[in-house]
Amino acid sequence: MEEKVKISILNEYYGNLLTRKQCEFINDYYNNDLSLSEIAENNNITRQAVRDIIKKGEKKLFEYEEKLMFMKKTTNQEKRIEKAIKELTKIQKETTNKQIASKLENIKKEINNLV
Amino acid sequence: MEEKVKISILNEYYGNLLTRKQCEFINDYYNNDLSLSEIAENNNITRQAVRDIIKKGEKKLFEYEEKLMFMKKTTNQEKRIEKAIKELTKIQKETTNKQIASKLENIKKEINNLV
Repeated sequence: MEEKVKISILNEYYGNLLTRKQCEFINDYYNNDLSLSEIAENNNITRQAVRDIIKKGEKKLFEYEEKLMFMKKTTNQEKRIEKAIKELTKIQKETTNKQIASKLENIKKEINNLV
Repeated sequence: MEEKVKISILNEYYGNLLTRKQCEFINDYYNNDLSLSEIAENNNITRQAVRDIIKKGEKKLFEYEEKLMFMKKTTNQEKRIEKAIKELTKIQKETTNKQIASKLENIKKEINNLV
C-alpha cells in the first residue's frame, strides 16, 4: 500500500488519539491535498512548524498501529470478504434457482458493507 | 453487555496502550479471576495500590473506546455476520443442490471467522 494512502487510513482509525492540530493537518495534507505552505498560511504558522506537527502525528499513527493493528486486521478481513463474495458469485452462476441467486446477491451486499 | 465482560474485551483491544501493570492486573482480575489481595501479594504491593492501578486502567480503556469505537464497530459487525449466516442457512435448506449446500457451509465458516 502506498505510504500516503496508509497514513490517510491510519488517521481515520487513530486520528482521535492525536492532537486536534496533528489530525487536522494530516487530513489537510493527505486527504485535501493542501501544500505545507497553504496549511501554514491558513493557520498563521511557519511551513516548518506544519511539517513538524505532521511528522509527529504520523509517527504516533504508526505507533498506534504497531500496538493495536486495526488496519492490519481490517485489511485481512477485506481480503477474506472478497474471497467469500467471489465464491458466492460462483454459486449464483451455478444455481438454476433465480430466487436463490437473488437472495445471494443481497447477502453479498451485506457482507461487502461489513468493513 | 456485563461490565466485567466489557472491560475484559476492551483490554484485549486497547491493553497495549496501557502500562504493563495496568494491562496485567486487569487481565489477572477480570480474566484469571484473581482477587485484589492475590494480585497484591503476587506483586508485593498493597491491595489499595492494585485497586487504583486497575481503576486507572479501566478509565483509560473506556476513554479509548469512546475515541476509537472498535468494540462498538466489532459488535455491530458480529450482528450483521450472524444475520448473513442465518440467511445462508435458509438458502441451504431451500436448495436441492447438495454441492451448493456444501459450498455455502464453507462460506458460512469463513464469514463466521471474520471477527
